[in-house]
Amino acid sequence: MSEDSSAGEAVVGARVELADLPLREDLRGSTPYGAPQLDVPVRLNTNENPYPPPPELVADVTRAAAEAAAQLHRYPDRDAVALRADLAGYLAASTGVPLTVANVWAANGSNEILQQILQAFGGPGRTALGFEPSYSMHPIIAAGTRTEWAPAPRRADFSLDTAAAAALLAERRPDITFVTSPNNPTGQSIPPVELRELVAAAPGIVVVDEAYAEFSGRPSAVTLLDEFADRLIVTRTMSKAFAFAGGRLGYLAAAPAVVDALQLVRLPYHLSALTQAAARAALRHADATLGSVAALVAERNRVVESLAGLGFEVVPSDANFVLFGRFEDARAAWQGYLDHGVLIRDVGIAGHLRVTVGTPDENDAFLAASKEISR
Amino acid sequence: MSEDSSAGEAVVGARVELADLPLREDLRGSTPYGAPQLDVPVRLNTNENPYPPPPELVADVTRAAAEAAAQLHRYPDRDAVALRADLAGYLAASTGVPLTVANVWAANGSNEILQQILQAFGGPGRTALGFEPSYSMHPIIAAGTRTEWAPAPRRADFSLDTAAAAALLAERRPDITFVTSPNNPTGQSIPPVELRELVAAAPGIVVVDEAYAEFSGRPSAVTLLDEFADRLIVTRTMSKAFAFAGGRLGYLAAAPAVVDALQLVRLPYHLSALTQAAARAALRHADATLGSVAALVAERNRVVESLAGLGFEVVPSDANFVLFGRFEDARAAWQGYLDHGVLIRDVGIAGHLRVTVGTPDENDAFLAASKEISR
Repeated sequence: MSEDSSAGEAVVGARVELADLPLREDLRGSTPYGAPQLDVPVRLNTNENPYPPPPELVADVTRAAAEAAAQLHRYPDRDAVALRADLAGYLAASTGVPLTVANVWAANGSNEILQQILQAFGGPGRTALGFEPSYSMHPIIAAGTRTEWAPAPRRADFSLDTAAAAALLAERRPDITFVTSPNNPTGQSIPPVELRELVAAAPGIVVVDEAYAEFSGRPSAVTLLDEFADRLIVTRTMSKAFAFAGGRLGYLAAAPAVVDALQLVRLPYHLSALTQAAARAALRHADATLGSVAALVAERNRVVESLAGLGFEVVPSDANFVLFGRFEDARAAWQGYLDHGVLIRDVGIAGHLRVTVGTPDENDAFLAASKEISR
Repeated sequence: MSEDSSAGEAVVGARVELADLPLREDLRGSTPYGAPQLDVPVRLNTNENPYPPPPELVADVTRAAAEAAAQLHRYPDRDAVALRADLAGYLAASTGVPLTVANVWAANGSNEILQQILQAFGGPGRTALGFEPSYSMHPIIAAGTRTEWAPAPRRADFSLDTAAAAALLAERRPDITFVTSPNNPTGQSIPPVELRELVAAAPGIVVVDEAYAEFSGRPSAVTLLDEFADRLIVTRTMSKAFAFAGGRLGYLAAAPAVVDALQLVRLPYHLSALTQAAARAALRHADATLGSVAALVAERNRVVESLAGLGFEVVPSDANFVLFGRFEDARAAWQGYLDHGVLIRDVGIAGHLRVTVGTPDENDAFLAASKEISR
């Protein structure tokens, strides 16, 4: 190899460029998804929980990892039965719906859950519909599984017009409908009566993405599972309220037959022994971790009021983030925040930016920057 | 919910069956991939390394997990840069090819690596070709990405006829060609000269699956990377030689442009902070872990000779498993081993079974059962 490498071409194979490769046509010119990972004092751009795991949780995760590490030469439980039972227990306790291990499936983040749903129920010749703006990974994962994406509108204030949405579903008949509640990046959740109306109107699978459910006072779509067992899938994540973004654990609740379907497309042994053990340890501390949720909701309300007081338009939020504006130039405003050491998110909605609710100090820094920028 | 649940239907949504769901047509009637996970004294069915991680490695993984656990509320490094640099260092040291972080990509097991390759370079309207029998996940992952699968033959003795294979590639012109070396489940590896001929003849991407490379004395296909940077991808796993099956870490070496391409289809934050930290810790102990490889190779040779001495036909193996026969009824023979407390693998090749090389005691138990069964 060394005889081929000149000083200017030290990296093996660097002479070949992306354009030289037989890439899928629809990927040409695209760029990888993801917010900038910048080293900035105040990071309020990815809706993480700002509170580190409590010491008891860290100790318990460490113990669980030590135990799993001694058996790392063996494949993990392919069906993650113990973890799924724990997740079912948590969901049952928090929703009042008697879910069991057969109702729950888990994967490396809710993104992998969504990908498996689209692999099982979507694909070429099938359509997935979502109400935009919403979680931008929905159309990306649809594209990754070659499912046609049908964007549907929200009202100008980003709320969902359920009657119009139900009519659209009857007309378009998508194979999969995404409903995000609370909606990311806008923040509103859907009242139960309207959610029921929407699920009833859907002709195919309905995925209610509840990544931010713990921050909302509204009942979970899990309460509709028994009634709509033939179509409803509720997805969740441990990344946000559970402060487990680094652990990558997404899950879903659905009829057992849906879980059976996903087992036909999941990669075998997709969830590592460490992930299964660490997530179970984190779930044992759910009460402590979820204690931060009330504090974050109170801070969210303070951020909303303060932003309104500064003259910003603020979209009502039921999550741990706030969409606000209006900026003549959102990109320039984003850079203005960054110049103040505060990283927030330009989600591509004209005139708006999204800020994650942080610790009181982080929120103070953000609000101080907002005051400067609002001038 | 409770008012809908009778005593006989306690599970939420259980009245709905798989056939009631709008599953992808090509999945109907299929069953999930995976060997039986049975609780048997001697488990020689999934090509795991039988030696548990040494105590120093367990301690180091535990320390790494403790450190990662304290920051679990934050998303992991999306690009896994530190881990990829370590993997590049390992590959560079073991192959002599000066790979860098830009040449390496990592995911949750080599299955996810293969899925990403097929998402980027395969898909509807494209074809992937493999020489069967080989790793049975290749066609399954192809199907999961809607890539047409073209099975190509091996010789009757399961070796690869390179000249015939090259001619077939010129004729069929697959978008992706899979070459498994050493081949699972048959065991043979491909001589470098023949591998070069095959890669040169391939019209598109060539994936050389080297999951078992550390058990072979043959040079890695990594030595061909600079020459065939426009097409060659070499995949590896930490599941086998590294005794890290439970940690789920697959990786690849290729031109930097290939890594760029996979970043267009990877799910963001696909690799957890715990996985990245634990894999780095395990890599620091590569010398100790790979020390077991020589012992396993010696045991493999003993198993091969003993089986031959008992009158079995044994396929030459360059890996940590052995394919052997012939059985009039392989399924019945598999059950016979299980009745002796030895779990091996029926890989669906008529008249043959595959046994993983275990510890000397496990191999003795397997050989004792073989003696009974050969009568």
